[in-house]
Amino acid sequence: MEGMSIDVVPEDLRPLLRMPLFVHLATVRPDNTAQVNPMWFKFDGEHLKFTHTTKRGKYRNLQANPSMAISVLDPENPQRYLEVRGRLVRVEPDPTGAFYVELGRWYGNPDQQPPADRADRVILFMSIEKATRQG
Amino acid sequence: MEGMSIDVVPEDLRPLLRMPLFVHLATVRPDNTAQVNPMWFKFDGEHLKFTHTTKRGKYRNLQANPSMAISVLDPENPQRYLEVRGRLVRVEPDPTGAFYVELGRWYGNPDQQPPADRADRVILFMSIEKATRQG
Repeated sequence: MEGMSIDVVPEDLRPLLRMPLFVHLATVRPDNTAQVNPMWFKFDGEHLKFTHTTKRGKYRNLQANPSMAISVLDPENPQRYLEVRGRLVRVEPDPTGAFYVELGRWYGNPDQQPPADRADRVILFMSIEKATRQG
Repeated sequence: MEGMSIDVVPEDLRPLLRMPLFVHLATVRPDNTAQVNPMWFKFDGEHLKFTHTTKRGKYRNLQANPSMAISVLDPENPQRYLEVRGRLVRVEPDPTGAFYVELGRWYGNPDQQPPADRADRVILFMSIEKATRQG
């Protein structure tokens, strides 16, 4: 399953993964219902990386079911979008909030400070396994 | 479970349900993995209504698991968002694509024509059961 990575994403839509866009991240709750939240992200060439904390619902969801899916609209043409499906393959601690700060700057705030909950911060690594498109 | 409707949505975020915004709709696939797609929608005062067809993955997902969740960003402030969770409570046929046309016009195309797949078009009615917010 793992390792297909960016090859599965249509080439003309790959630029959407290199821009500071909000993606909407879907996870599955322990009672098998859907959850979805807008997220900052960064593509490292292999995984989609998210800043998160170990204290929230999404983290608990992912401990029970590692499935993740994101959708992102083309800001130039909202009829055009990309969905990527994969799963949580790695969690790294981020106790200084450094990755949070990196994302905050990438999303346009040069003065981004570490978050108050930095002690609980982690980086979620999502594999890229399937992609679907429209437009 | 049903019938809590708009009362669960914080009052200051309700206007987001009255604007032609793209929402990202999460569903759960039969293998218990997550799916998410941007969608047009319309709030009728009780349900969130979507145009869809009976031939696509999301429809099959919902037949097996009626759970639905949407997230929507405030266009004025992307740090502010609303998530609504609920489930599919009704499906109505739309064989002329009239609801599709209504949505296309609501989203800014005065010349919206019925879709080629109108024979398979349906209206999905999502209940509003829980809401979470940020910002």
